[in-house]
Amino acid sequence: MKINVLISPLNAEEMYFTGRTTVIIDVLRATTVISTALENGAKEIIPVGTIEFAMKISGDAFGGHRLLGGERNTKKIEGFNLGNSPLEYGKEVVEGKSIILFTSNGTKAIVKAKFSENLVTCSYFNLNAVANYLLALDTDFDILCAGDNGRFSLEDTVCAGRLISEISKLKKEVVLTDSARSSVALDKAFGKSITRMLAGTEHGKKLKENGFQKDINFCAKLSKSEIVPVYKNGVIKKYEPEKAV
Amino acid sequence: MKINVLISPLNAEEMYFTGRTTVIIDVLRATTVISTALENGAKEIIPVGTIEFAMKISGDAFGGHRLLGGERNTKKIEGFNLGNSPLEYGKEVVEGKSIILFTSNGTKAIVKAKFSENLVTCSYFNLNAVANYLLALDTDFDILCAGDNGRFSLEDTVCAGRLISEISKLKKEVVLTDSARSSVALDKAFGKSITRMLAGTEHGKKLKENGFQKDINFCAKLSKSEIVPVYKNGVIKKYEPEKAV
Repeated sequence: MKINVLISPLNAEEMYFTGRTTVIIDVLRATTVISTALENGAKEIIPVGTIEFAMKISGDAFGGHRLLGGERNTKKIEGFNLGNSPLEYGKEVVEGKSIILFTSNGTKAIVKAKFSENLVTCSYFNLNAVANYLLALDTDFDILCAGDNGRFSLEDTVCAGRLISEISKLKKEVVLTDSARSSVALDKAFGKSITRMLAGTEHGKKLKENGFQKDINFCAKLSKSEIVPVYKNGVIKKYEPEKAV
Repeated sequence: MKINVLISPLNAEEMYFTGRTTVIIDVLRATTVISTALENGAKEIIPVGTIEFAMKISGDAFGGHRLLGGERNTKKIEGFNLGNSPLEYGKEVVEGKSIILFTSNGTKAIVKAKFSENLVTCSYFNLNAVANYLLALDTDFDILCAGDNGRFSLEDTVCAGRLISEISKLKKEVVLTDSARSSVALDKAFGKSITRMLAGTEHGKKLKENGFQKDINFCAKLSKSEIVPVYKNGVIKKYEPEKAV
């Protein structure tokens, strides 16, 4: 099992992902939102790469079955039902709903990797579930960090390192590329207290400035959800092993 | 003094560099070649972004004052005088010469950052000299890692971390971005034995496979040169403080 980490979506072309297995990480906050929404009973998440496309496909949003969620510069987009805070995606709001999601980095990363054979999203919130899914799948994979507008994101890379470490504990024959080795080293250097690490990052500080301190605490929760969000044909649903067989 | 690290040239647009101070790092091997050539008396290095442009401006290469150097896939390019091994850039070969240099990552990174107000190249070979130059300049700067075809390069990032650490030792008011903090952590994790680190990277292994083991040993030499290569108007020359005043 060979594990590679892509530091940002700019580091690979769309076609690179064809037929591969890819894990998207955007801890603050898109992939945390996705696992939370599915945990709370959302039917599906439809990740989109542009606001325009989100609006276009939200034709029946006012019919009540679809919700528009997402952010620009950390804040809710005008006309959207929900922002990008996992705390907004409670059971009473999302149960049974389809959620069209646009975010600055996370959903763009998912859309970029759409040709993957297996495409899942990971956050601290569902980290062990994703580790177990990958162990069962037992194939080479890339972790694609959503990054920060094409740049390095400390929190995504540290989370990637943690995911790799969890897998390496249970599987001996793991081969790590240089970026994967570095992610593991960064998890060791920064990941001991996830809350402190998140709060200390550039993105974490910006969230705090904009009033999202509670989001940081939520995004730091480790492996509280058993949901593995799987992307297929434009839609993310929770992985159901019995259906996959 | 704020220090930022760009993991690869894809992580910033050309215009980002306008008016800024930028340090290019491509340890294996372009920036090591550049400091070595200038150390050995080369008049100047002309970094180019394409082989075609290298050929175009090498009109008088056969007049003997200009040399064409560089590599594609680690190996010397057909028709070029020199490859990309610092061991080829001895005094007897390069003294007094202009060298047109094309490499897969390093010279492209230099060309990308050409609008910088101050643009210098750094390798382990001249690391302390560059640290002292930056301390004297006393301004915010970016370290642009040449990377590996748009991807993360462990050796460039670890070297960036070492450069930052050397500067931080002598200057208290240093502010590090997340990528700069991560580079320092990676230097601590991997940079204790530079030779071992370089030999263990993907690029180092490829060089070894292609017969360049000695290059790895050379590129690991720390601060043996006092040369600070400065790019100005398309040409890299050694920094001469008296001329700069």
